Amino acid sequence: MTASVSAAHLDARDPLAFARVLFDLPSDVIYLDGNSLGARPVVAAPALADAVERQWGHDLIRSWNENGWWTLPGRVGDRIGVLVGAAEGQVICGDSTSIQLFQALVAAARLVPDRTGLITDGANFPTDQYVADSVGRLLGLEVTRVSPPDVPARLDERTAVVSLSVVDYRTGELWDVEMITRAVHAAGAVMVWDLSHAAGVLPIDLDNLSADFAVGCGYKYLNGGPGAPAWIYVPFRHQAAADLPLIGWHGHAAPFDLEPNYTPAPGIDRARIGTPPVLSMLALEAALAVWQQVELADVRAKSLALTGRVIEIADEIDCVEVVTPRAQARRGSQVSLRMTYAYETCQALIARGVIGDFRAPDLLRLGFAPLYLSFQDVDEAMAQLTEIRDRETYLDPRFARAVGGAVT
Amino acid sequence: MTASVSAAHLDARDPLAFARVLFDLPSDVIYLDGNSLGARPVVAAPALADAVERQWGHDLIRSWNENGWWTLPGRVGDRIGVLVGAAEGQVICGDSTSIQLFQALVAAARLVPDRTGLITDGANFPTDQYVADSVGRLLGLEVTRVSPPDVPARLDERTAVVSLSVVDYRTGELWDVEMITRAVHAAGAVMVWDLSHAAGVLPIDLDNLSADFAVGCGYKYLNGGPGAPAWIYVPFRHQAAADLPLIGWHGHAAPFDLEPNYTPAPGIDRARIGTPPVLSMLALEAALAVWQQVELADVRAKSLALTGRVIEIADEIDCVEVVTPRAQARRGSQVSLRMTYAYETCQALIARGVIGDFRAPDLLRLGFAPLYLSFQDVDEAMAQLTEIRDRETYLDPRFARAVGGAVT
Repeated sequence: MTASVSAAHLDARDPLAFARVLFDLPSDVIYLDGNSLGARPVVAAPALADAVERQWGHDLIRSWNENGWWTLPGRVGDRIGVLVGAAEGQVICGDSTSIQLFQALVAAARLVPDRTGLITDGANFPTDQYVADSVGRLLGLEVTRVSPPDVPARLDERTAVVSLSVVDYRTGELWDVEMITRAVHAAGAVMVWDLSHAAGVLPIDLDNLSADFAVGCGYKYLNGGPGAPAWIYVPFRHQAAADLPLIGWHGHAAPFDLEPNYTPAPGIDRARIGTPPVLSMLALEAALAVWQQVELADVRAKSLALTGRVIEIADEIDCVEVVTPRAQARRGSQVSLRMTYAYETCQALIARGVIGDFRAPDLLRLGFAPLYLSFQDVDEAMAQLTEIRDRETYLDPRFARAVGGAVT
Repeated sequence: MTASVSAAHLDARDPLAFARVLFDLPSDVIYLDGNSLGARPVVAAPALADAVERQWGHDLIRSWNENGWWTLPGRVGDRIGVLVGAAEGQVICGDSTSIQLFQALVAAARLVPDRTGLITDGANFPTDQYVADSVGRLLGLEVTRVSPPDVPARLDERTAVVSLSVVDYRTGELWDVEMITRAVHAAGAVMVWDLSHAAGVLPIDLDNLSADFAVGCGYKYLNGGPGAPAWIYVPFRHQAAADLPLIGWHGHAAPFDLEPNYTPAPGIDRARIGTPPVLSMLALEAALAVWQQVELADVRAKSLALTGRVIEIADEIDCVEVVTPRAQARRGSQVSLRMTYAYETCQALIARGVIGDFRAPDLLRLGFAPLYLSFQDVDEAMAQLTEIRDRETYLDPRFARAVGGAVT
């Protein structure tokens, strides 16, 4: 362990150190899996208790008006909008990322009905690829898998839609979203970004980027709780034309008229579908309050400092390859380490209270949520990893491969 | 008020009277809106607190295995299956009813690719009609609106799919599901039933019915909480062929292999999509425990007794028309009353603690959840309604039309 500046020194100067107490984390755990499921903000528990006891239990159906359930998807959407550079009125919260991506891809393709190509990334998160294939089949589009840096060279007048993730979920590589979006627009195509591994951990400015659609999940760096609802961004310039395939009465221009024919609401409300999972969404809303005390620039700076430190330490461990880019501009908030016995190493770390995850076949993936991790946490986690690798306890039969795994 | 048998007598003999204490309801409310949002089962609060504090807060990502989050959609699905006559392994819980209906309609149409017609009901719940139109457009099917009793006469060799609700959400009419399903099958078409207003309040036997697909919501008579996730039924005989449009990694045959191409899971798991709203689903799971103590036949018998009594009393109120069928075999668990000033009457009832809802333009809709309503509740509610109508306080300007309304 030879990091140049002491962790205690860095923690003492950390402008985000105050945020640690906003989260409940077990004292015996160093949690490096906030990129899969964010830790629980303290405010989530009383918010849920109020939602269950007072709002559901006492106010019952009246809560749709009196407790603002009806306006919840837009309220939460706007709070997320702040984190992704979207002015109010362009983000709606609801459903899962898979569903929102399906919405976005179909609506995107319908903006350019004469084109026939849909590009995704062959290393994109599996669901993103499955949804692209399903949409391609439904709309008669040819789906091509292209690595993000190669996308500009593969665009042509047939390209309808490009669907990419901002950060590679496996390697943690951050793509050049500006360059790619510009190229896609120059080719007359429509750009859909998945921000699942970006929102809440790095600055992204969807409005300035002129992104056409974006989606993301609520349970990673937004800390909204397990399976927290996802969100979709539809910029003002596309709202009137956004022709969405998944429609329900909540997105109708006059929902309480209960009309037999669908007329979409004029603004972002058209991206509402059916009744949202209110309890889960109220947990997410409470979790998002944390961000009102935080500057995203501080989050990004700390994220880069944490991941930089991890890379520095990992470089000294034998037979461990740092897969995540070293250049700051190309790095999300995780560090992925390639190694033999990655699964067993991950299990050994978990047994020592350091929770990361394994990605087949050979990656140990460590995520860094700057709001609740300290530099000393990182040093301790890496000391454990170093010790495990040095002692080769990963060969111990007690760490034999078990069924299942963690959730992206 | 001249109901022939005293309410107190009926309550004393009610085999479901014990269930009232399983629900938390405000003491000053008679809740006749369980068909919009079911009351809160007592067990929901501790279940949610445990989900938030221990499972999310302490066990974190490990909960996917250790607390069974991964198997939750199937577990909850099987519990719902018991209530709708589906043997284990044919129901998955997740997403919203709108999403599940979209899934079902596309998969249904793909079973009969040479056919071109999709029938829905012009009085069907609006979302059901919007989804039918969207699916029709995506798959090139002609959508026709037909009233359920007229469906058999309108079937022909072009009919691919018939999509109907078991109970009319507005009038409370219960359709002849057996006759209609038989006719649809005789015509070689595929039958999709929406059980939103039926599950948990009347016996329905999807397996014996040979329904092809069914969907329903979790927050009405199942009491799963606001926006509780929905569910889909795909019978064993269709599972291998079910070709679903909304796909995600949770439904993959080998989800943790994170493969770039989709291979659906062999059984009902293929109906999983993305990460479900775990907190909302755990509330629903807890709520479903109530049913382990209840016989659905008792629920149906009490429902018919309650609604029969309401009709009997309503018949004596001037200028109130009972819209719900009087024949028991044609009645769900609600009574809809047509009247002038229905909205104002509904508001006046709410001001007196009797919560029903209004359906434009002229219906007062009263829902009866047999698990937490007594005959004395019903008599008291109807006494209030009678008094309001007799005194015409509904003309009082204090009850002038306000914005918004309740949620179906």
